Amino acid sequence: MSKGDLTRSRILEEAMHLASRDGLDGLTIGSLSEALSLSKSGLFAHFGSKEALQLAVLEHTRARFGVLLVARMHRVAKGLASLRAFVNAWLDWIALPELPAGCPILGASFELEAHEGSLRDFVVKLQRESRDRMAAIVRDAVDAGELRKAVDVAQIVFELRGITLAFHQELHVMRSPSAREHAERAVCALLERHSVDKPEPASQRVRSRVAGHRKTRRTG
Amino acid sequence: MSKGDLTRSRILEEAMHLASRDGLDGLTIGSLSEALSLSKSGLFAHFGSKEALQLAVLEHTRARFGVLLVARMHRVAKGLASLRAFVNAWLDWIALPELPAGCPILGASFELEAHEGSLRDFVVKLQRESRDRMAAIVRDAVDAGELRKAVDVAQIVFELRGITLAFHQELHVMRSPSAREHAERAVCALLERHSVDKPEPASQRVRSRVAGHRKTRRTG
Repeated sequence: MSKGDLTRSRILEEAMHLASRDGLDGLTIGSLSEALSLSKSGLFAHFGSKEALQLAVLEHTRARFGVLLVARMHRVAKGLASLRAFVNAWLDWIALPELPAGCPILGASFELEAHEGSLRDFVVKLQRESRDRMAAIVRDAVDAGELRKAVDVAQIVFELRGITLAFHQELHVMRSPSAREHAERAVCALLERHSVDKPEPASQRVRSRVAGHRKTRRTG
Repeated sequence: MSKGDLTRSRILEEAMHLASRDGLDGLTIGSLSEALSLSKSGLFAHFGSKEALQLAVLEHTRARFGVLLVARMHRVAKGLASLRAFVNAWLDWIALPELPAGCPILGASFELEAHEGSLRDFVVKLQRESRDRMAAIVRDAVDAGELRKAVDVAQIVFELRGITLAFHQELHVMRSPSAREHAERAVCALLERHSVDKPEPASQRVRSRVAGHRKTRRTG
């Protein structure tokens, strides 16, 4: 890394922190220059415009999450183990101390819903990539014979996103101490529902054994 | 309603629309005065400050959702029917044409995560009320013998919130045509999982009958 790259990386790390706290639109050259004790003109020289800075922060955020994913999924077997590692990394990411109000990409997605333009397009692209990646991991778990062949991959991705969003809200809005536990239980229940060797709930097992027993006695 | 109340209500309806589109912080006396062709000084006379306007918009939004809920839950039996009516009203609310980027209370909850103050406190209070209300409806369904006695009410509320958040994101960020279908399927699966007369999946039924049969033969 050159000295310029290091400076840029340090700037973007602080910008990511500010974008988490204040939203992408709340991130200004002014607040960033104050936080870093760098001149506004120096920051303008690095990025050229507020939008270029915003795009660079989103890209930096994506890369940072990518590094976390690589670390967590390295040497983890394809399939359900990878899916669990991915979701756990995601929950950890949402709770990362450097991100006081969670992932800036998620925040930006809410901010930009009704605002057409290249920023919105980029956020949608990142969200789509993230869905595609998760869908591929779910399909691996199907191919590995761990999730049922008939599962609706898009439905599972939808529900996993819902769990991470609820976790984000319980953690950052409600500041609930049980946010993580609720998220993990929801993930377990979802994967169990689609698992090939899903254990039957005890009540059902008893009931169906009794039914099987009766049937055997009637026919035997 | 007096003429003053009517004017205030008309102003707040427009302000709710703007807060949905631009976020609570993006709602300004200036943009509101432009949208309504009313003078800035007239608007200031109504609200006194930007924060008072923001609080009034949140309160107006809560009241508007309350009216929708009353209309939808009127004469619906307590229990699971009410829970379904509540969730459907909520999904409709998220997709309401007057709210171009969904519920301003939800938007504000993301905006204000790391910003302490009376606005944040008010949003958290509204969110808590909404969770409490949903929890009470889930408990009614338990009391009515429709959901299992052992259900974890807070867990169900967490997962239902996750589904509505995923719906919001699929609809307003991804603009996916299957958002509603995914949300409804997720709600069905969640309620079925906790339902008293949950049917066993066919595959499980066959497998456990076979198991029961074998066991009977072994022991009989």
